[in-house]
Amino acid sequence: MQTHIDALTELLGADQLLTGSDISERYQVDWSKEAPHMPEFVVRPRNTADVSTFLRYCSEHKLPVVPQGGLTGLAGGATPRDGEIALSLERLNGITELDKQSMTMTVKAGTPLQVIQQAAEAEGLRLPVDLGARGSCQIGGNVSTNAGGNQVLSFGMTRALVLGLEAVQADGTIVPAYNKMLKNNAGYDLKQLFIGSEGTLGIVTEVVLRLFPLARNKHTAVVALDSFESVVKLLNTTQSKFARLSAFEAMWNSFFQCSVGANPNLSDPFDEQYPFYVLLESENDALDQFQQVLFDELEAGNVLDAVIAQSGKDSDQFWAIRDSIPEVMSTIPQPYANFDVGLPVSQMEDFLDKVQSSLSERFENVESLTFGHLGDGNIHILAWTTHEDNSQAIYKHVYQLLNEFGGTVTAEHGIGYMKADYLKLCRSPEEIALMRVLKQAMDPNNILNPGRVLS
Amino acid sequence: MQTHIDALTELLGADQLLTGSDISERYQVDWSKEAPHMPEFVVRPRNTADVSTFLRYCSEHKLPVVPQGGLTGLAGGATPRDGEIALSLERLNGITELDKQSMTMTVKAGTPLQVIQQAAEAEGLRLPVDLGARGSCQIGGNVSTNAGGNQVLSFGMTRALVLGLEAVQADGTIVPAYNKMLKNNAGYDLKQLFIGSEGTLGIVTEVVLRLFPLARNKHTAVVALDSFESVVKLLNTTQSKFARLSAFEAMWNSFFQCSVGANPNLSDPFDEQYPFYVLLESENDALDQFQQVLFDELEAGNVLDAVIAQSGKDSDQFWAIRDSIPEVMSTIPQPYANFDVGLPVSQMEDFLDKVQSSLSERFENVESLTFGHLGDGNIHILAWTTHEDNSQAIYKHVYQLLNEFGGTVTAEHGIGYMKADYLKLCRSPEEIALMRVLKQAMDPNNILNPGRVLS
Ligand SMILES: Cc1cc2nc3c(=O)[nH]c(=O)nc-3n(C[C@H](O)[C@H](O)[C@H](O)COP(=O)(O)OP(=O)(O)OC[C@H]3O[C@@H](n4cnc5c(N)ncnc54)[C@H](O)[C@@H]3O)c2cc1C
Ligand SMILES: Cc1cc2nc3c(=O)[nH]c(=O)nc-3n(C[C@H](O)[C@H](O)[C@H](O)COP(=O)(O)OP(=O)(O)OC[C@H]3O[C@@H](n4cnc5c(N)ncnc54)[C@H](O)[C@@H]3O)c2cc1C
Repeated sequence: MQTHIDALTELLGADQLLTGSDISERYQVDWSKEAPHMPEFVVRPRNTADVSTFLRYCSEHKLPVVPQGGLTGLAGGATPRDGEIALSLERLNGITELDKQSMTMTVKAGTPLQVIQQAAEAEGLRLPVDLGARGSCQIGGNVSTNAGGNQVLSFGMTRALVLGLEAVQADGTIVPAYNKMLKNNAGYDLKQLFIGSEGTLGIVTEVVLRLFPLARNKHTAVVALDSFESVVKLLNTTQSKFARLSAFEAMWNSFFQCSVGANPNLSDPFDEQYPFYVLLESENDALDQFQQVLFDELEAGNVLDAVIAQSGKDSDQFWAIRDSIPEVMSTIPQPYANFDVGLPVSQMEDFLDKVQSSLSERFENVESLTFGHLGDGNIHILAWTTHEDNSQAIYKHVYQLLNEFGGTVTAEHGIGYMKADYLKLCRSPEEIALMRVLKQAMDPNNILNPGRVLS
Repeated sequence: MQTHIDALTELLGADQLLTGSDISERYQVDWSKEAPHMPEFVVRPRNTADVSTFLRYCSEHKLPVVPQGGLTGLAGGATPRDGEIALSLERLNGITELDKQSMTMTVKAGTPLQVIQQAAEAEGLRLPVDLGARGSCQIGGNVSTNAGGNQVLSFGMTRALVLGLEAVQADGTIVPAYNKMLKNNAGYDLKQLFIGSEGTLGIVTEVVLRLFPLARNKHTAVVALDSFESVVKLLNTTQSKFARLSAFEAMWNSFFQCSVGANPNLSDPFDEQYPFYVLLESENDALDQFQQVLFDELEAGNVLDAVIAQSGKDSDQFWAIRDSIPEVMSTIPQPYANFDVGLPVSQMEDFLDKVQSSLSERFENVESLTFGHLGDGNIHILAWTTHEDNSQAIYKHVYQLLNEFGGTVTAEHGIGYMKADYLKLCRSPEEIALMRVLKQAMDPNNILNPGRVLS
């Protein structure tokens, strides 16, 4: 390795390399905290040309590289593995252009999401990607994982907000696939290859984002229901009756109570407990219209109770119940299985019933909490057994069931290396073979994030 | 060829082949009407397995294939060229599943767009892809061209509405990339390869579409303005003030007058002529809100006049002014250059000024009509000289200018073979090289629509 360190120091300058004890914990593991590992060394290029020089060198010498953004990923994708050099994009930081008329922003890959959100808002615009890790994650990481978050129902995943990008291929070739238009059908849409491929097909160095006007207004409510059927009915009704349904977050009673209990700043907005809760948000509706829709649902008996936020503070409280995942996690025994599954909405009830009954059959003392971006078909389940560690067995068991219902093992967090063995449970052999064809064509030496996505 | 006809008759059955005089004009040219050509023969498979058998045979014998949907394309993509066998998808026709709860529809590739639209509407849902060719174009063609149309501003292009698909690769491998979820980050998003690649990377045989609820209501207006700057200002205002701006179609006065004049069923809704007109449509606003926005624009002097549709009939009339392209085309001398360019909204005014001035400088007696999906950055220009055919020279001249403004030679119609020589004016050499890598990896014998997209 020392020869490579010397050669790269020569090529890039000493200030771009971190070695030995200068490598802090930050570069050793992502937010999953699973299997921290020291990289051989860390390279922190200052610009795209340096990324290119570095990758050309690695390709020539067949050196494996793990790309790192904000390291908030949950699938181990940015965690170094044996013999890997970490490529940190953190210094490619900054906004290149904000074009108000065209409603686009061009930003370097290492720019934190929150910085971008704030820059847009300062101009009366917004980037509708939002997630709990907004302060630490970087746009390059969001693009490479095709991040989801709280506004997918109305605005799509990160993929839908990327108009163009610049990427560097494994051999160092810089691909300037810039574009500022909503529509461009000139040839293959190459940006799609780099979005969501978790750093295995190329390094994202700059991104052109689509911005939107701020919402005219927002209304938030939490409603209580007594069956999953009612939840799905409410989803269909609010999608057609609200001007723009921007969030539909479902929480099972066990999760709801755990969250309210785990967080001293929260209180239950209802006097009783109910089997299901939904956090609803609508944009651009008049308040009376918003109220009327909920009132009609109460009248019809589909909703049992509803609390409408009267202030920004109320709405923050409601969101905090949904977002208290770290607090919830701290109350349950480690290790637990942490699912990010996706299913067609029409399959969800049967799947969840099946998970409940078959987990209880298969394991003793099994417990679980369920919540999720239900409007997007995305359910998170935390499951564990109280007496011993069955997390790996629980993963296998649930993924196998999922397969029967046409679901995906990861709706938003990605495969990384942690789910690479399960990819075959939700993608056909022909799909996986075609993924390998792409990987082979674009990274023939397998230097970019080897073992992630495809094991 | 006769050996191949015999062999395929043996493999597929005689009823799947059309030869000689049985090949009607339908299979010889797309809607551009440019360079009609007889295919060697036509194959019309009844199912995906037969598509696979056919392609495997063609790959083994290195026979070039031109895929054909509804043949309403405008770039020559489905028009046979020398030695090609036409693969018509018309018999892969029908709806496989409509899942109301999940709001998805699974349809075979040869199903006409309008049939799908109507099936969705019968269930209180909609597929928000719409274009003039709706009765003849097929969903497989819409997907393969990533069709745009009238609702891109709010719902995106066809790409945004495809959740999953089944495709057949050049060697006959069937890739079942089905998916019914809004979110699925399990591995590479392979469907993106087949969307918008104009039949050069694989044959689309079945599609899973995302449906939406019907709009709560719609309001339509035509407004008159006196500068392009005002048009852009109106775009920004209506995007933020309307609940959902669903159409923003700009028409220059010359186009507007020509359309109203060419169509005996149309009348000018205004008493005077104005430099610019915009057809606006908003969804989910109360009427008074819609009116108020336009009233404020009139008060502020940004809009000179406005007419709001009072009935479905009014709104149909307004749309007919925008959609009378065939009538407009019949009034101008053949051949003319027909542009489908895209630019960032912020570049459009300068670009169009430059086009006007430099066309006048370069050509004598040059005339043009301009209109387009302005909200999407997509402008259509028809340009011709009155005394001689300069259409090819006009194409070259305008595309060269476009290059300087960061635009695309095709926002929605695609490259086909007609624009293949111009691809390099709007995509970098590195992008084109990467497109070739994909083509080589997925269709090594170059049998799928050779010469389209990549020349
Ligand atoms: C509190 C919390 C909440 C979260 N909520 C959500 C949520 O709602 N929805 C959701 O989807 N995710 C969520 N996540 C997961 C995570 O935040 C996202 O995946 C995020 O997009 C990762 O960005 P990052 O910059 O931290 O990437 P990293 O973790 O550094 O990397 C993620 C992957 O992308 C690769 N990569 C990073 N940058 C680049 C680049 N420039 N070029 C090529 N490859 C690159 C890495 O190799 C790795 O495979 C959450 C995480 C936390 C901690
Ligand atoms: C009146 C009119 C209005 C139009 N308006 C618009 C508009 O607003 N926006 C817009 O984007 N386009 C528009 N178009 C263009 C055209 O309708 C679209 O491109 C449409 O999507 C083509 O569909 P099709 O089935 O007719 O495809 P075809 O013309 O048959 O084929 C188009 C291309 O796709 C390939 N192809 C077709 N089917 C398949 C398949 N199953 N698998 C693989 N490849 C396939 C063909 O080889 C060809 O390259 C318009 C056309 C007309 C005539």
